[in-house]
Amino acid sequence: MKRAIEWQEGRLFILDQTLLPIEVKYIELKSLEAVWEAIKSLRVRGAPAIGICAAYGVLVGVAESGANTLAELRASVSSSSEYLATSRPTAVNLFWALSRMRAAAMREDVEPDALRAHLEAEADAIYKEETACCRAIGVYGEGLIEEDSGVLTHCNAGGLATGEIGTALAPMFTAHAKGKRFRVYADETRPLLQGARLTAWELHEAGIATTLICDNMAAQVMREGRIQLVITGADRIASNGDTANKIGTYGVALLAKAHNIPFYIAAPSSTFDFSLAHGGLIPIEERAAEEITNAFGRRTAPEGIVVYNPAFDVTPAELIAGFITEKGILRPPYQENLRALAHGRTI
Amino acid sequence: MKRAIEWQEGRLFILDQTLLPIEVKYIELKSLEAVWEAIKSLRVRGAPAIGICAAYGVLVGVAESGANTLAELRASVSSSSEYLATSRPTAVNLFWALSRMRAAAMREDVEPDALRAHLEAEADAIYKEETACCRAIGVYGEGLIEEDSGVLTHCNAGGLATGEIGTALAPMFTAHAKGKRFRVYADETRPLLQGARLTAWELHEAGIATTLICDNMAAQVMREGRIQLVITGADRIASNGDTANKIGTYGVALLAKAHNIPFYIAAPSSTFDFSLAHGGLIPIEERAAEEITNAFGRRTAPEGIVVYNPAFDVTPAELIAGFITEKGILRPPYQENLRALAHGRTI
Repeated sequence: MKRAIEWQEGRLFILDQTLLPIEVKYIELKSLEAVWEAIKSLRVRGAPAIGICAAYGVLVGVAESGANTLAELRASVSSSSEYLATSRPTAVNLFWALSRMRAAAMREDVEPDALRAHLEAEADAIYKEETACCRAIGVYGEGLIEEDSGVLTHCNAGGLATGEIGTALAPMFTAHAKGKRFRVYADETRPLLQGARLTAWELHEAGIATTLICDNMAAQVMREGRIQLVITGADRIASNGDTANKIGTYGVALLAKAHNIPFYIAAPSSTFDFSLAHGGLIPIEERAAEEITNAFGRRTAPEGIVVYNPAFDVTPAELIAGFITEKGILRPPYQENLRALAHGRTI
Repeated sequence: MKRAIEWQEGRLFILDQTLLPIEVKYIELKSLEAVWEAIKSLRVRGAPAIGICAAYGVLVGVAESGANTLAELRASVSSSSEYLATSRPTAVNLFWALSRMRAAAMREDVEPDALRAHLEAEADAIYKEETACCRAIGVYGEGLIEEDSGVLTHCNAGGLATGEIGTALAPMFTAHAKGKRFRVYADETRPLLQGARLTAWELHEAGIATTLICDNMAAQVMREGRIQLVITGADRIASNGDTANKIGTYGVALLAKAHNIPFYIAAPSSTFDFSLAHGGLIPIEERAAEEITNAFGRRTAPEGIVVYNPAFDVTPAELIAGFITEKGILRPPYQENLRALAHGRTI
């Protein structure tokens, strides 16, 4: 499986996801600005992967800054983190990873080289933890997939979006590895087609039976009885269970409810934001009109047309059958059960 | 307003809708095969417009055949109709218009030139009737649009799809002409983007406030309180009110229900198929995978991926608040009220 992010001897490489599935190309992010641009323009995307990339991005910023003393290094961690935090607003993993890097910089007064080593170890730890989370999510979620069933997913919460085998796709990779037969229906996910370009590519490469559909076909495939389960990822989950994810997720959740199909969110603990009481407080990124009007190099809408392009929506907790986390499957009542997660108790 | 179809001195021209909104170009359909191809490849589309084009297409076929005697002319009408009926399966207006042309050919034994004149008069009558229907639909539907409200539509059921001001868009054009203020949200309508390319273009040209969104944003704009009314067109309506329309319509209807927004179908009588007891009997066209995988001239999905591309879906009657027809707004119970329409009574 291709890794979205590679850290090799102090150099940060990412698989440029804007080129997929036509081209499989790694690029080096040599400056803090290049890291910011890669996150902003979705060369690297998916909440956990953004967090991992930002953590290493802080190291890139520190190296670039030429900081030498402990104070200079800490100042560079701080300014690099502040800058990277402006790249995208919705995925909470970004802020969580940056705050871990800042905390690592402040932990103890050490020699500059030791601090550099601590920072690298922290970024590595974030990467490793996210990878372990994916595997655990796969194990817990796999049981939801029935033999000869259909599973629908929206956007891409696969290996490309995370540390390894993904969040939403982890149960599918795990079930496939166990020899289970099922079919995944992948929403193409307009405007940037992460479903068509990334999810369909990952699953197809892995040999999992996959059918690509347009977003507006989800209701019809549900009605035809092709779907028994929906799993998507998440960009931020409020403490009541309201969940921000790629635009269209809320609609899919409503359609699943109308067809009595269970709708699950797969996400590691790092995606939960216990500082927010409900989903209405999650900031939603609005992106450029051109993503819709100039699809894939060709203009497909009249000049001067008004466009609304929210990148995310919020699915209310009551539409969610459960959260597949690395600690188990969390079920309602969420207010109570998410509090247990926040306090690190087994669920 | 640009006309989708022009019949000028025995020659058939259509506005090639595959080139919109970049290019506004009329092409002449010089042969029966060119008419078939234009319908098949959506150069002319929209249920009423397909019917009008097919009616004139029969005249093109008759001229091309070199038929001279009454028997030859009738044979040519018959074979031309049979051929054009294979172009697309779902819109019932196609079969309705062709059956009117066949009936006109058989009505009475006349001189060949008189028959030619009868056939042309019948095609003209179909065009005029559809145009009159659009105006009446506009008048009846306009009252549903409230001042300062938002109206969502899916695909294109505008002037380009019909005789004149459209079916779903007719109430909007009529309300705008009366000076009402409102905003239309146009679903872009994947895979072929009739909403982005055609609806947004028509409304924008007419000066109606329009916001273009991706199909998967409809739920979110409803949730934000931006939509007070949904109107779409129809390709075929069964006698119980179940309605086939562009893929995605069924999903929009479910989302509208979840947000307590009334969902209306605008369609002339020619779209009702009283021979079918329910929507499950409507044939649904499945189109080529490339419409989804090679969007906009560029490949956007992995090679070899399985694709499901139904061009239409069926919205169950219970999700429909009413049918805006040229005879008035039809409301439940549909079984009874549609029967009245079938028998030509005022509703």
